[in-house]
Amino acid sequence: MTRSRVGAELPRLVGVGVGPGDPELLTLKAVRSIREADVIFAPTRRAGGRSMALEIVAAHLDAGRQRVEIVPFPESRAGETWDGVARHILAALGDDGHGVFLTEGDPMLFGSFGRLMAALGTLRPGFSIEIVPGVSSVTAAAAAAGVELTDYDDRLAIVPATTTLAEVDDALRQFSCVVILKVGAGLGDLLRLLDRHGLLDQAVYVRRCGWPEQEIVHEPRRLLADPPSDYFALLIVRRR
Amino acid sequence: MTRSRVGAELPRLVGVGVGPGDPELLTLKAVRSIREADVIFAPTRRAGGRSMALEIVAAHLDAGRQRVEIVPFPESRAGETWDGVARHILAALGDDGHGVFLTEGDPMLFGSFGRLMAALGTLRPGFSIEIVPGVSSVTAAAAAAGVELTDYDDRLAIVPATTTLAEVDDALRQFSCVVILKVGAGLGDLLRLLDRHGLLDQAVYVRRCGWPEQEIVHEPRRLLADPPSDYFALLIVRRR
Repeated sequence: MTRSRVGAELPRLVGVGVGPGDPELLTLKAVRSIREADVIFAPTRRAGGRSMALEIVAAHLDAGRQRVEIVPFPESRAGETWDGVARHILAALGDDGHGVFLTEGDPMLFGSFGRLMAALGTLRPGFSIEIVPGVSSVTAAAAAAGVELTDYDDRLAIVPATTTLAEVDDALRQFSCVVILKVGAGLGDLLRLLDRHGLLDQAVYVRRCGWPEQEIVHEPRRLLADPPSDYFALLIVRRR
Repeated sequence: MTRSRVGAELPRLVGVGVGPGDPELLTLKAVRSIREADVIFAPTRRAGGRSMALEIVAAHLDAGRQRVEIVPFPESRAGETWDGVARHILAALGDDGHGVFLTEGDPMLFGSFGRLMAALGTLRPGFSIEIVPGVSSVTAAAAAAGVELTDYDDRLAIVPATTTLAEVDDALRQFSCVVILKVGAGLGDLLRLLDRHGLLDQAVYVRRCGWPEQEIVHEPRRLLADPPSDYFALLIVRRR
């Protein structure tokens, strides 16, 4: 389908969740949105770094027709730092460009897309933004590990390891299932915390879900001696 | 691709999350899994009722080659009630059948597939089960409403309204974002609880996400006078 250039089209942006890694976990809507775009914005954590989101969608890009822009995440957490990203995107879209902004997993669940939306809305009120949800690493890891998260009246807490250990501790006391994201260098402390709760042997460690280097550890006690450090790792803890 | 019938193939089952409603939120992997199957098992809440999961995948079925079996959910919560479903599936697959079991949303997040897996594992240890994760109603509703769930160190609680109001209350006190699922007839009580927390004007009500009758209410205070009752409704509550 070719977009008509005759009518007075306005620029627009679609935030597309591309899933956690496996390119087959793209939705049909994500694929269509990517194909319909003129400009693909793909985030990277460091200037010059790889964009995992771009690698996930590589098979659906048309290099002859589409422009790809790698967008480094601002390093500071200050809201105004996204102002620069938003300005860059608006300039790249021009008067009638149609862009997609890719996010790993889902745009609204630790996907940073909310910050970009806020910055775009401030710079250009009424700017057209659509969101395509994606499969999150939470459910993808549960599927890969064959571990049920919730059933019936169960309650699920999703907690990043970047919060305090006390808050993880609270969640473990109160929820039937806790998923701890962005485990990184905190794995050793988290495993010891689980052990104190008597939950270590009910936990599963999943890193790089859906990537060739995916690793699933059903007996994470064996990681206590020399805990690996990986930002793209999570723990699923389910009370049995 | 045609499956070879020459080798000694064993029966197998793939649990497929089909997303919350919009057929475009099927993943490429879900579509492939459905196309490769001989038998499609589609759940319904009541014998003789419709299967929403089947309606979502209807465009990808091949009536000439595939068999569709509607499977009513057991009404009792007792674990052994899934034994009958598991026996039915094993009989339908026979010696080398390849089936998919559809679940709305994601199989491991309130998808009931864990119960079926447990029953199959008891009846036939070593039976081959794969799981294809799906987009959940949680992130799909957030996308449809344009509401960010979490960012940075935020923590998310996912709580079914079928639990006690006290547990919803606890989650509201402690989490930056709470998604209350299966709102149903409890909407009035939940809205009043949110009001007591000063969170009612920060909540969004979403029902039938991705279906033609989808409804998004950004000012749920107006529902207080005559709260609708819909099982397939949720509330997103985000502290600002």
